[in-house]
Amino acid sequence: LLESLTAPMHAADIADLLEQFNPYDRGRFIRLYSGDIHGDILSELDESLREEVIRFLDPDQLAEAVRTLESDDVVDLVEDMDDADAEAILGALEDSDRVAVQQALSFPEGSAGRLMQREVVWAPDHWTVGEAIDYMRNTEDLPDQFYHIVLVDPRMRPMANVTLGRLMASRREVKLADLAEESFRVIPVTQDEEDVAYAFNQYHLISAPVVDDDGRLIGVITIDDAMIVLDEEHEEDILLLAGVTESSLSEGVIETSKSRLPWLFINMCTAVLSSIVIAQFEDTIEAFVALAVLLPIVASMGGNAGTQTLTVSVRALATRDLTAANLMRVVRREATVGLMNGVAFAVCLGIVGMVWFGMPQLGLVIAAALIVNMLVAALAGTLVPVTLDRLGVDPALASGTFVTTMTDMMGFFAFLGLATVILL
Amino acid sequence: LLESLTAPMHAADIADLLEQFNPYDRGRFIRLYSGDIHGDILSELDESLREEVIRFLDPDQLAEAVRTLESDDVVDLVEDMDDADAEAILGALEDSDRVAVQQALSFPEGSAGRLMQREVVWAPDHWTVGEAIDYMRNTEDLPDQFYHIVLVDPRMRPMANVTLGRLMASRREVKLADLAEESFRVIPVTQDEEDVAYAFNQYHLISAPVVDDDGRLIGVITIDDAMIVLDEEHEEDILLLAGVTESSLSEGVIETSKSRLPWLFINMCTAVLSSIVIAQFEDTIEAFVALAVLLPIVASMGGNAGTQTLTVSVRALATRDLTAANLMRVVRREATVGLMNGVAFAVCLGIVGMVWFGMPQLGLVIAAALIVNMLVAALAGTLVPVTLDRLGVDPALASGTFVTTMTDMMGFFAFLGLATVILL
Ligand SMILES: [Mg+2]
Ligand SMILES: [Mg+2]
Ligand SMILES: [Mg+2]
Ligand SMILES: [Mg+2]
Ligand SMILES: [Mg+2]
Ligand SMILES: [Mg+2]
Ligand SMILES: [Mg+2]
Ligand SMILES: [Mg+2]
Ligand SMILES: [Mg+2]
Ligand SMILES: [Mg+2]
Ligand SMILES: [Mg+2]
Ligand SMILES: [Mg+2]
Ligand SMILES: [Mg+2]
Repeated sequence: LLESLTAPMHAADIADLLEQFNPYDRGRFIRLYSGDIHGDILSELDESLREEVIRFLDPDQLAEAVRTLESDDVVDLVEDMDDADAEAILGALEDSDRVAVQQALSFPEGSAGRLMQREVVWAPDHWTVGEAIDYMRNTEDLPDQFYHIVLVDPRMRPMANVTLGRLMASRREVKLADLAEESFRVIPVTQDEEDVAYAFNQYHLISAPVVDDDGRLIGVITIDDAMIVLDEEHEEDILLLAGVTESSLSEGVIETSKSRLPWLFINMCTAVLSSIVIAQFEDTIEAFVALAVLLPIVASMGGNAGTQTLTVSVRALATRDLTAANLMRVVRREATVGLMNGVAFAVCLGIVGMVWFGMPQLGLVIAAALIVNMLVAALAGTLVPVTLDRLGVDPALASGTFVTTMTDMMGFFAFLGLATVILL
Repeated sequence: LLESLTAPMHAADIADLLEQFNPYDRGRFIRLYSGDIHGDILSELDESLREEVIRFLDPDQLAEAVRTLESDDVVDLVEDMDDADAEAILGALEDSDRVAVQQALSFPEGSAGRLMQREVVWAPDHWTVGEAIDYMRNTEDLPDQFYHIVLVDPRMRPMANVTLGRLMASRREVKLADLAEESFRVIPVTQDEEDVAYAFNQYHLISAPVVDDDGRLIGVITIDDAMIVLDEEHEEDILLLAGVTESSLSEGVIETSKSRLPWLFINMCTAVLSSIVIAQFEDTIEAFVALAVLLPIVASMGGNAGTQTLTVSVRALATRDLTAANLMRVVRREATVGLMNGVAFAVCLGIVGMVWFGMPQLGLVIAAALIVNMLVAALAGTLVPVTLDRLGVDPALASGTFVTTMTDMMGFFAFLGLATVILL
């Protein structure tokens, strides 16, 4: 029954199904199903669950599962495992595959070398269509997936890509070099996978040759793997902005709690800093309790405006639309927008403050504080992530806390400071 | 000089360059460069700038630029333009292309029909490799980009994909049906582009046939276009979470300011609601100013924990890892995590409150309020986006404001309410 249900399912969907179970049901399911845990399912599975699932497989099953995978998928499977599990998987591979995987693992984590497949179809750049077709016809094991023939010079340096489509459409005597695709990028093996994904998205690449330090062809990266990296980079950005480091719904309570603690802790420290600012003005608040009522509005508006600007900046850094060349223009624009919106809401909230508490000066104080705070939000929202980026820190990582700390502290200081001067 | 600088650049990079200029420099650049504004550059350009750039081109230049584009790129170019500009571009096309574009435009915006290209290479499913190769060799204009031959039954319904790689590697007499690729998905023409991008990412598709309501083949979507959609959907999510609706760094101050106002306004209204909660406890605050000092800590911790949970949930909804099947398990997990972290920080801040103000009861009050608030954050952070999703609203859109409003109001109420009961 189980097999008849899962047989038509894609490995990615079976992996998702496993992720949805609680650990107990997952164990039962795998025990029933273990004969059919193909390598594909393992490689689709969330990293946090792979080791759990592998424990249920006996060595023969594991060996069989892993042998069906391409070398780049084995690399992805092995790189996050502890040594014993990794050994078990490497031991199950054929010698040539094992060497390929080990070589890939010798490149830094998150580099193009980890992402590429070593199976490349290439041809000398003086070949004709006919020669290429005959060669492919006579080669025993072409890779499962390939979309281009890479043309190389005599020193194995990639010169161009020829799509299989144009190859098929051309007569035998046409030179391959004349069919070269316009969009062509060569990827250094040590390039960061984030830059690889950017290049695929920016230049609409389908596959791109990977070269070693001497510029020689050693592998190829295909767009489906680049798309996965793009998706992971996005996940990283959106989670980091919220102060979450990695996460998966199938993780347990303890790990989840641990992964949330660091940023909550930092947030607590910065919140205490803001409280210290407020504490300096206890006398003023004692005299005018209305100030305590309005405090959270100042913090909330500044925090919100700061987060807006910050998110736009982080995204623009990721898409490389925010560069040194237009930084000043963007900062000026954000500052102007912050001032304009600050004035708009200063008028609104000034009136609210005036009417609610019947104190015109209180309206003036909150209005002025709001303008200051929105301007701080605009400046911090652009300059903080750009500075982090220049320092080599992921701008999504720490910006959120920095920016809201600045808006909170400056907002409280402006609001309570002005109140002390004007109202007392 | 200009030409020698830009000639080796990819159209996407030239478009990025144009985006980085200020409007004045952009105008000067285009006037110098207008003869070489290819269609590619227009289609890479940010939507907010396309019309501006098109104004600099005379009709002949525009016509020439547009004629070099594939129909799916013309659709993307035209769909966001006002009618006069769209007419101008459609008028410049050859008749057959214009019909193709108009048909694509007849499908709803954001649907597979807008994304697909109409140029498909297909073959009857009883053909052999030799027949397919001869057919392709003899066809005059094969599409620029294609990676599969779509096999169709006699009623034009797609049955399988054959990759060109496997085709090349096989002998002439092999049946195409025997080379069918394992991963095969058919996309209905009205499917939302977000679902299309999900399918490409989930099933590692390279291209997928698009069918009309009767299941007949009418086009094909390729992964490079799906990757762009995936990227745009991510942008939408990350910006919506921060309360920004669309954005581009090249937009002017006025439009940017306008695009930020709505969520700031909603945020102001909800902030006033929180203030009203505080106002109910003016007497308590007057008696204990320390409460005003600690208020922002309660708000900040709850808001932060809520945003963490919310972001994880929004992302999990986008990747379809959060479903009706595991919703209850996820909510339970988040609530447990919220309680655990609540207790941890309650202890910390309880001690801070006690030591700082020398009032043990104050420590107790903030500790209890924090636990309540972290629990509210966990529940709101999961249930709000899931509910919006069920109602057909984008969960990234409104969740942020809802969640922080709930944590603010409940946090203030718990903190000040408990203080009134215990301290007064
Ligand atoms: Mg999965
Ligand atoms: Mg793969
Ligand atoms: Mg990995
Ligand atoms: Mg691969
Ligand atoms: Mg990374
Ligand atoms: Mg990143
Ligand atoms: Mg860009
Ligand atoms: Mg661009
Ligand atoms: Mg569009
Ligand atoms: Mg296309
Ligand atoms: Mg959408
Ligand atoms: Mg979406
Ligand atoms: Mg998934």
